[in-house]
Amino acid sequence: MPLAESDPRARPAAIGWTRSGNDITQQFMAAAGRPEIISLAGGLPAAELYPVDAIRAATDRALSRWGSAMLEYGPIEGFPALRDRIAARIAAATGGRFTAENVLLTTGAMQGLDLLGKALVDPGDLIVAQFPTYLGALDAWRPRQPRYAKLAWDGAGAEFDAALARAKFVYAVPNYSNPTGVLVPQAQRSALLRRVRDAGTWLVEDDPYLPLQLDGSAGPSILAADAAQRAGASYDGPVVYLGTLSKSIVPGLRVGWVVAEPGLIRTLTLAKQCSDLSSSMFAQAVAAMLLESDFERRHIPAIVALYRQRRDALCAAAAEQLGDSFEWEVPPGGMFVWMRAKDPAFDTDALYQHAVAEKVIFVPSSVFDPAGALRSAMRVNFTRNPPEILAEGVRRLSRAVDRYRAERRTA
Amino acid sequence: MPLAESDPRARPAAIGWTRSGNDITQQFMAAAGRPEIISLAGGLPAAELYPVDAIRAATDRALSRWGSAMLEYGPIEGFPALRDRIAARIAAATGGRFTAENVLLTTGAMQGLDLLGKALVDPGDLIVAQFPTYLGALDAWRPRQPRYAKLAWDGAGAEFDAALARAKFVYAVPNYSNPTGVLVPQAQRSALLRRVRDAGTWLVEDDPYLPLQLDGSAGPSILAADAAQRAGASYDGPVVYLGTLSKSIVPGLRVGWVVAEPGLIRTLTLAKQCSDLSSSMFAQAVAAMLLESDFERRHIPAIVALYRQRRDALCAAAAEQLGDSFEWEVPPGGMFVWMRAKDPAFDTDALYQHAVAEKVIFVPSSVFDPAGALRSAMRVNFTRNPPEILAEGVRRLSRAVDRYRAERRTA
Repeated sequence: MPLAESDPRARPAAIGWTRSGNDITQQFMAAAGRPEIISLAGGLPAAELYPVDAIRAATDRALSRWGSAMLEYGPIEGFPALRDRIAARIAAATGGRFTAENVLLTTGAMQGLDLLGKALVDPGDLIVAQFPTYLGALDAWRPRQPRYAKLAWDGAGAEFDAALARAKFVYAVPNYSNPTGVLVPQAQRSALLRRVRDAGTWLVEDDPYLPLQLDGSAGPSILAADAAQRAGASYDGPVVYLGTLSKSIVPGLRVGWVVAEPGLIRTLTLAKQCSDLSSSMFAQAVAAMLLESDFERRHIPAIVALYRQRRDALCAAAAEQLGDSFEWEVPPGGMFVWMRAKDPAFDTDALYQHAVAEKVIFVPSSVFDPAGALRSAMRVNFTRNPPEILAEGVRRLSRAVDRYRAERRTA
Repeated sequence: MPLAESDPRARPAAIGWTRSGNDITQQFMAAAGRPEIISLAGGLPAAELYPVDAIRAATDRALSRWGSAMLEYGPIEGFPALRDRIAARIAAATGGRFTAENVLLTTGAMQGLDLLGKALVDPGDLIVAQFPTYLGALDAWRPRQPRYAKLAWDGAGAEFDAALARAKFVYAVPNYSNPTGVLVPQAQRSALLRRVRDAGTWLVEDDPYLPLQLDGSAGPSILAADAAQRAGASYDGPVVYLGTLSKSIVPGLRVGWVVAEPGLIRTLTLAKQCSDLSSSMFAQAVAAMLLESDFERRHIPAIVALYRQRRDALCAAAAEQLGDSFEWEVPPGGMFVWMRAKDPAFDTDALYQHAVAEKVIFVPSSVFDPAGALRSAMRVNFTRNPPEILAEGVRRLSRAVDRYRAERRTA
């Protein structure tokens, strides 16, 4: 059968949304395979702290306790022992009433974002999102083709309230936001919560960086503030809270969760059924055992100490090498420093090409803007590399800035 | 803050597709928590064959070999050692040229269906699907709101070819199809492949039941037939092949794969990035170790022997108890017997309610029809329960049929 004749027509192409957005995540992934490049780009934990032995022991204990029950399909909602444990921990952390019916376990918190889009967003629907916005959230919602309005933390007036009233949900990362590292003050959280309640919409509180409190406390979540004011058998408020073990244990278990009122959890469960039937019970059972043994709580201080040292090393190197061109706040937690060019015409998309030539990568600000227009800042990760590599990365960045400026003078 | 006043408005509701379809999968899941019910409904493996000790040992060896590398995020495409191994095994099974760039690892084969919908299907787009159609495929594509045309295996004429030419893809389960158990003859597979090539569309070959060859051989896959006729460094044909370890090892690892030409794999990888960043590297590394040690090949004969015995027990019990009302072929593989009512007016949706009253459940045919109109058949699983439970389940089904007939006479 001569295939040149029997394959005469092009096969159906991918649909429109796949050509929107950018390929920055694939670029990070490709760079990960090139050891000569220093990556300050991704949001990756320090792999040397991954608790290989604790995971081996937890797997062994979990298989002894649960046996074939942790090797089944679903429940769609997740492995019951972990679902119960997450409910109990949210109840303890917030003082609210949370039961298993408030919890859906997901493949990382990322899948929670995907399921929210799948369940709530039709093309053209409005999302009010903290700006700049986590790239993964924009990715998760690209297939739904929403419109975006900017979240005003200081709640500026009628126009913002009108956007809230039209929005399918509000998206915020109040703790050490991605990409800015900002810890949103409690007064602003309360103000937003009031407006969300008045508008009758959902408030998605994405909280992956909660374990990474490098200086002082993060303070209560918005979920806690809302739950404190509700009675009832289980939480029924507007906050949709996303958590994960990716930053405090390892990302490779892909264990995350959505906490929300039971009706929305049922809807998201249907969306999950249609996505993958269930996440890995095997990984969830291992996670349940790690939490039961209190491993996570004992492990976090080592992560925090290491990340604090790395953040300080990055900021010290940057103060020497990049202070003429960029300004930033030292973030009180999380994984990133958000560096803003002093010259508002600075273009970090252009800088990126020079950085690749100097064998260092970061994330340009444009990818955190649904419109792609924010060009004058960059996100720099400090958790993945030791201080000496961070310092070398900053030196390379500084040379990239020199190249960029030289090119601009010539142009 | 009095919440009765500050929560004045209803929050945004789930979008339209969430109200389409049916809740049969949730019903199965709920029944799983009620031990007094005999479930002949789901497609669940025999849990007593889950290899708990082999998985414990594989986890131990995998952590010793790969350490923190199996606890990372991605690559999005999957754990490299497993991706390579799947490519090699497909190459060996088909005689074709397959490399890692032909392979995307997924959270079960189910996620492959979801990603295909996400990447290729806009609302109103056409899918040509084998009829009746696997419920999970219909679920996966519900959020995309496609139209369906029926796959004619015997390729009847110009109208069918016109549908193929318009279709985003064709969906088929040639080996021991879900729900019918049919093993599609090689001549029909070849005819379909020719038509698909001529039409210039994709052919999704879903092959979860390949390991469950109870009588004789399944014969070559459509992928193999196509790959045999292609040269090039890596497969570039129209077949999109889905596989899984859920039936041959355990479902709870959630390890599945899509094999396709590299361009489509890249598109599906983008869709996966937007869904969950990656599946669990931890589970994939354990799976890679199980395959490397040849565990799966050694384990399958025990599964096949048990399922053959159970299939025969179910069919024998049914011949005694249900032969007046239903007819079926003994399936040569897979997990299901497809029982068709001799009376075309028989309504298995109505039977289902009587079955629940008799504490037995099955899957009514309506859920395998995109239009919900096919009412005269039922899918009965034989893999999950031992012979004596299958026999008791069939007795209860027979009583449910009696109730159904009595009610019809009264009505």
